Amino acid sequence: MKEEGMKRIQAWQNEMKAYQLALTTMAYDRLTVAPESGIEYYSEQAAYLSGVLYSIQTDTQIENVLHALKDEDLNAEQKRMVELHLKDFDRLKRIPKEDYVSYQKLAQISEKKWEEARAKKDYSVFEPYLLQIIETQKKFCALRDSDKAPYDLLLDDYEEGMNQEKYDAFFALIKEKLLPLIHEIAMKQDAVRTDFLQGLWDIEKQKQMMKVLQKYLNFDPSWGYMGISAHPFTSCFSHNDVRITNAYHEDLLLSSIFSLIHETGHAVYEHQIPESYEGTVLCNVSMGIHESQSRMYENNLGRRMSFWNRNYDQLAALYPEQLKDIDQKTFVRAVNSAKPSLIRTEADELTYPVHILIRYEIEKGIFDGTVDCSRLEEVWNEKMKEYLGVDVPDASKGILQDVHWSDGSFGYFPTYALGSAYAAQFIHAMQKDMDIDKALSFADMESIQKWQKERIHCYGASIPSLQIIKNATGEAFNPQYYIDYLYNKYRDLYQIK
Amino acid sequence: MKEEGMKRIQAWQNEMKAYQLALTTMAYDRLTVAPESGIEYYSEQAAYLSGVLYSIQTDTQIENVLHALKDEDLNAEQKRMVELHLKDFDRLKRIPKEDYVSYQKLAQISEKKWEEARAKKDYSVFEPYLLQIIETQKKFCALRDSDKAPYDLLLDDYEEGMNQEKYDAFFALIKEKLLPLIHEIAMKQDAVRTDFLQGLWDIEKQKQMMKVLQKYLNFDPSWGYMGISAHPFTSCFSHNDVRITNAYHEDLLLSSIFSLIHETGHAVYEHQIPESYEGTVLCNVSMGIHESQSRMYENNLGRRMSFWNRNYDQLAALYPEQLKDIDQKTFVRAVNSAKPSLIRTEADELTYPVHILIRYEIEKGIFDGTVDCSRLEEVWNEKMKEYLGVDVPDASKGILQDVHWSDGSFGYFPTYALGSAYAAQFIHAMQKDMDIDKALSFADMESIQKWQKERIHCYGASIPSLQIIKNATGEAFNPQYYIDYLYNKYRDLYQIK
Repeated sequence: MKEEGMKRIQAWQNEMKAYQLALTTMAYDRLTVAPESGIEYYSEQAAYLSGVLYSIQTDTQIENVLHALKDEDLNAEQKRMVELHLKDFDRLKRIPKEDYVSYQKLAQISEKKWEEARAKKDYSVFEPYLLQIIETQKKFCALRDSDKAPYDLLLDDYEEGMNQEKYDAFFALIKEKLLPLIHEIAMKQDAVRTDFLQGLWDIEKQKQMMKVLQKYLNFDPSWGYMGISAHPFTSCFSHNDVRITNAYHEDLLLSSIFSLIHETGHAVYEHQIPESYEGTVLCNVSMGIHESQSRMYENNLGRRMSFWNRNYDQLAALYPEQLKDIDQKTFVRAVNSAKPSLIRTEADELTYPVHILIRYEIEKGIFDGTVDCSRLEEVWNEKMKEYLGVDVPDASKGILQDVHWSDGSFGYFPTYALGSAYAAQFIHAMQKDMDIDKALSFADMESIQKWQKERIHCYGASIPSLQIIKNATGEAFNPQYYIDYLYNKYRDLYQIK
Repeated sequence: MKEEGMKRIQAWQNEMKAYQLALTTMAYDRLTVAPESGIEYYSEQAAYLSGVLYSIQTDTQIENVLHALKDEDLNAEQKRMVELHLKDFDRLKRIPKEDYVSYQKLAQISEKKWEEARAKKDYSVFEPYLLQIIETQKKFCALRDSDKAPYDLLLDDYEEGMNQEKYDAFFALIKEKLLPLIHEIAMKQDAVRTDFLQGLWDIEKQKQMMKVLQKYLNFDPSWGYMGISAHPFTSCFSHNDVRITNAYHEDLLLSSIFSLIHETGHAVYEHQIPESYEGTVLCNVSMGIHESQSRMYENNLGRRMSFWNRNYDQLAALYPEQLKDIDQKTFVRAVNSAKPSLIRTEADELTYPVHILIRYEIEKGIFDGTVDCSRLEEVWNEKMKEYLGVDVPDASKGILQDVHWSDGSFGYFPTYALGSAYAAQFIHAMQKDMDIDKALSFADMESIQKWQKERIHCYGASIPSLQIIKNATGEAFNPQYYIDYLYNKYRDLYQIK
């Protein structure tokens, strides 16, 4: 029974994995190189294949096999596999297929409308689609489990075990400890020089710098590839095929650099998950841990003085005029500077969680009804003013800046801040085991990646994220590491007593 | 009955079209950007999806519907659709699904082995796979129709209506009329200067030249995209999404230029087929006509003096040193020079059909048993010596130079020579309707493309290729146009009396 059941699950997984790779490839292609006017045809075919995949994913015969397997004598990995599959059934099976496929199409159109609205800086172009997306998500949540708060369901989708209560406590800490510091720093902008980051930075040279950093970070072209897209992202095709993308802006030197470092953090994670998990649900790792790895690369490693010991000279050589009088220390201080700003993806490490806090509060309000959905743009702008003291000049720099809501990814944003907090705790533990600065100074990313693999990546999704943190760091998740890290670093940098 | 039947066919086509786009996208991705080590995982998933598509393509219920529809009162397009679908059934339905899927996997491995063999310049690495491919193709032909000569079946697959008898006559003409001329020209190499084409040509500048030519040729980024791959190819995703690729070699100036022009010929064809045929079998146009459009761009237009009136100065400006003393006339004479050589894809217009003749004779011999399959490399080298007078130094420049046999595409090569012959006849007809040189001189590709659309592209596959030629040129296919064109052009260029 057990043998046979596992065999059926295996065959079913093999089926899903072909569709998943097809859809991953098509999405990557669309976001990197596909010509504009082919998108409609693409969207139809992708929706069709999503529908086929949905039918496979919600096959009730398989669900029965999974339920029967639960009572068998399984090893820990098999148990976890069955558990995760059943969670997926719970998430999907009560949504009628027609509704599911329509929603895929709606999401495609909504994303296009979002793009259009953003280009026109006009929220009203996107608003009706967003409202439809919200309505559908609420409906889906009610179908899934009418007893649970809808937003709790969504938060758990993106980070297993999380809910509003836990996030409330987490964000309360950020509000209490970091907001006052941010306001103080906003008044002390002269303490850190950033003027030299103005100007234009030749894109071909940015691309040359990417090669330097890819080599330094061990992002190996035999298993990885970097494309170009409007917004950087990582996409895992298979164990030995992990893609990242980057975006180049002539007026932003740091954007492509820190995007590359960030996405490489994601990519290394995907590549270091055991190959035996390839194509199975044990690769579907937590968003929070995923983001912890990318933000750890971007911030906790990438903005360290020692990271630039090997890299700054090469950057300075590419831009001899602009960086003529700038030494490494001045550069590193600048890449760590903090200042309230409008755009999440370009935000500094300190103000970043506040951008997430704002999104969290709005999402929460959307789903518990305390936010008026006809006033979303105003609510956004009010919160930006309240928490960060900035005025939103137009919707493209406000509510339209992120793609996430356009396809209904509510509950996703909070994992970004959570990931930063996980990262601080991981780094604290890593520091106890090895000399991080020494490794970075000697271009020895291998040692760091070995630590990540042994402590974090080796688990894949075979245990829940909070358990990974315990195993890797020896204690339960504790956001205090994050708060302390930011608090000390920024008081020091801005000489605040 | 008719209405209902057509509806079922429509739904069935919609199903196929999703899988076709998925497989097209995955193949394009693999050949352009996919990292090496992910190929195995990709191949498995692609083979799985090919299997699903095969099941859809060979659905006997649909075959019955098609047979019933044949007797209904259909319009010409519907009739043709039914006819083409039934041809596809005939091609596939007698091959067991397991054999079909195994063959897909074999073809993937064989292609990898071909690559490896080519890199090692060692035919023996590839030979066992090629022999397996040949055996399987022979077996498939016998399953399909044991009464017909297998090679006739394959020739018809790639060019409807063609067979060995017709190709024999065509190639006899080439042997009789062109071989003596080629031998004469081989002795008169001093007549055309080509020395300046030696040297190194900066690849970034080659890419800049591509932009000039793409604009000139109306290859519009809103519906087209050019990637990079080891060998240039064109891939149609949908009416508004046509991809081409190019390859850059620092030591070859003309390779990327004429590849771009060639592939654009394919791309414009795909884009100008009526949008109402999108995703249907009426887009599956003849390989011969397809190649006629690309070779017409590459040779009959791209190597004309007037083509370079607008483009040569820009090329010369990109390479001021190398082209300092070279005027447009000298350059155009050089791009038309002819000399027996080893590599088909780099061959000149005159010797090109002889490369195809050699492949045709070997393929024919493989399938009628007159060529000993254990001696293929030797046979190749003997024919190269006999027809072109060249010695093959190693297999990578001989039998391993082309990918086609590695996935069993026998019968494909002959369409390349046929396409060149069609092109000569089309150009002859076009010349009667418009002043081609004037259009090219004024960068007016639009007029040429309008002619192509109205005379050729508008049909898609709704009529057989030989009918398209009749409609477009007012007479049946006549290879004499091709022979005369080459004969006159090259006697003139090399001053042969």
